[in-house]
Amino acid sequence: MATKFTEKHEIQFYECDVTGKLTLPMLLNIVIKTSESQSEALGRGSDFVNSLGLGWVITQHEMTITRLPKTEELVSVTTEATSYNKYFCYRNFWIHDESGQECVAISSTFVLMDLTTRKMTSVPLDIIEAYDCEKITKILRGTKISSLEDDSDAREYRVRFSDIDGNKHVNNSRYLDWMVDSLAYKFLTSHEPTFVNIRFDKELAYGNSVTSHWQEASGEQLISKHRIKLDGTLCAEANISWRSM
Amino acid sequence: MATKFTEKHEIQFYECDVTGKLTLPMLLNIVIKTSESQSEALGRGSDFVNSLGLGWVITQHEMTITRLPKTEELVSVTTEATSYNKYFCYRNFWIHDESGQECVAISSTFVLMDLTTRKMTSVPLDIIEAYDCEKITKILRGTKISSLEDDSDAREYRVRFSDIDGNKHVNNSRYLDWMVDSLAYKFLTSHEPTFVNIRFDKELAYGNSVTSHWQEASGEQLISKHRIKLDGTLCAEANISWRSM
Repeated sequence: MATKFTEKHEIQFYECDVTGKLTLPMLLNIVIKTSESQSEALGRGSDFVNSLGLGWVITQHEMTITRLPKTEELVSVTTEATSYNKYFCYRNFWIHDESGQECVAISSTFVLMDLTTRKMTSVPLDIIEAYDCEKITKILRGTKISSLEDDSDAREYRVRFSDIDGNKHVNNSRYLDWMVDSLAYKFLTSHEPTFVNIRFDKELAYGNSVTSHWQEASGEQLISKHRIKLDGTLCAEANISWRSM
Repeated sequence: MATKFTEKHEIQFYECDVTGKLTLPMLLNIVIKTSESQSEALGRGSDFVNSLGLGWVITQHEMTITRLPKTEELVSVTTEATSYNKYFCYRNFWIHDESGQECVAISSTFVLMDLTTRKMTSVPLDIIEAYDCEKITKILRGTKISSLEDDSDAREYRVRFSDIDGNKHVNNSRYLDWMVDSLAYKFLTSHEPTFVNIRFDKELAYGNSVTSHWQEASGEQLISKHRIKLDGTLCAEANISWRSM
């Protein structure tokens, strides 16, 4: 049984939007920070992984949101590396508020990338053993993402210097920023997300200009659909479920 | 003599750029957070200020940078409201590393804005008395910012949903992001800022599209010049001094 790892985090005003609640991109940053802390505590931090010529890449997040924490809240961020197979590592995250109520639960899939070839590699025992998580043979399929019907709604985003992280590519959180930004201000200030399912297909570099395509939230479940493309190639796809505030 | 207020802050990976060092926009966010904490400790937090129909607005920062802290560093952020006159409040900030070395020193000018008229108002005693800072009659003039010669270099930035903060306008840190982003990747990864002098002239709202104009760092002191304009109106201006790494 894998060990859970918990850290406290105070939500900063600059991690929140105009409504005073944590943004979805910052939610991703905060949980990833906790998995990095766990890895470092186990002697498997990014320096160690990089020394093997490898880097962690996220391929999917499924985020169930009870409520997004607010500015100045002190939350507990918990993570657990649950299982792995030849290529995929599965990890869960939770955010709890000070009264112990669950705010967010996330199921994520990670792979290891060869930093030279930028291709996926099998998971070395030397990395994964430290996490004490279950080896499985099955590939866990995430919840399917329903695709946009067409790309008629499109907005261009040029990758900025500040979008590039220590892995020398666009940080995953930015894709979600470009997706959320496509929705109307009025909608975003009167609705909150309840479920986000995002899949990352292609890394992006400085100099790239992508298009963010969207379909506004519709249906009883108020699901908005999103995809990010680079020169016609799919880079990420997401569905976000919303409820009115 | 005003009281200094200090908080610890751990630099997060998502507050840093590809070089692993704190970004200038995040540096601003981190120090502003500490002044907000001080104000709350004195019962003069944003709820109190807003209840008077007012909000704080920054008009200038002069940032002297010995070194930018790195990811995972635990720094001390200190602030002191030094003096005020009828309209202007002056505040200093410092960031020190764990060995007590100064990383950054900032002199800032704040004014109070009427949230309805969006105009500057005189400083109410009910707010400022709590800080125990000196009343002065003189208006302190900051270091002059040398203007760009022309606007031929220009890049457009559309204000995004995530640029808007709790004051319902673009957060000050974003202006600096648009300025830094205009410089070349190769320059930004081989130089570090030593002094930033930024003045804010006009607030920006959701829906605005601004142009960021720049002049690359030149001269012995390697000073880059920047300005942000909205429909021809100056919104912010800055000089940044650099040194090669």
